[in-house]
Amino acid sequence: MTNVDLNPIGYVSSPYKKKEDAPRQGRLTDTEAEIVIDERYLPGLFRVEEKKHLFVLCWFDRSDRTVLRVTPPHKPVEHGVFATRSPNRPNPISLSLVDVINITGGTIRVRGLEALDGTPVLDIKPYSEEIDCPK
Amino acid sequence: MTNVDLNPIGYVSSPYKKKEDAPRQGRLTDTEAEIVIDERYLPGLFRVEEKKHLFVLCWFDRSDRTVLRVTPPHKPVEHGVFATRSPNRPNPISLSLVDVINITGGTIRVRGLEALDGTPVLDIKPYSEEIDCPK
Repeated sequence: MTNVDLNPIGYVSSPYKKKEDAPRQGRLTDTEAEIVIDERYLPGLFRVEEKKHLFVLCWFDRSDRTVLRVTPPHKPVEHGVFATRSPNRPNPISLSLVDVINITGGTIRVRGLEALDGTPVLDIKPYSEEIDCPK
Repeated sequence: MTNVDLNPIGYVSSPYKKKEDAPRQGRLTDTEAEIVIDERYLPGLFRVEEKKHLFVLCWFDRSDRTVLRVTPPHKPVEHGVFATRSPNRPNPISLSLVDVINITGGTIRVRGLEALDGTPVLDIKPYSEEIDCPK
């Protein structure tokens, strides 16, 4: 699957400007960030304001895609990247559950997003307890 | 972000051969499927067998990427695609929470994957209640 065009639907506006600023997991902090949706994708936001929690998928463009084994900071034992949430992985697509604070035009203000400022956003999905939680 | 190379890490082997076969949400069925990981990514699977639940991200290559509004079958009101889990969206990356049945070599047998046979797999992440569930 060479040369698939990913079209970012928007970008993250975040207080985290570089890797050293970012928390291990945004979910564990109260920091707020914004997702700025590109004008041409605004019709896709219809009724998103009815959702409390969203999954945000970003393209971690500053990741190392060659890494297959990592030693997580909180569990200092080597793991395959697919057993961790490391940003370094063959396809660095991040998955963050965020709380929606408000939506103004094409800007979604959220809590819990661990992404550097300027990170491309690929997709937004509503969280559903029915399908996203183990039974 | 034109022409990002997505490198599938493997493919889905599933009883669902075409769109009409697939359930609305795999999570709601007991159907089993397999994820066959490409040989060069096998080191990334180290310790995945310790996980009970995984998020599987696939590239829904048979989706319509031009759709921005849909009317979900279970809630017949128009929504923006980002307020739904429709497979049709600008970047058709699916997100499925699956239960791991077993792992044999590079084959992960799972329950709850809603993906057609042959669908490219982009990423696998361990489910973490701490970061993937609303507080």
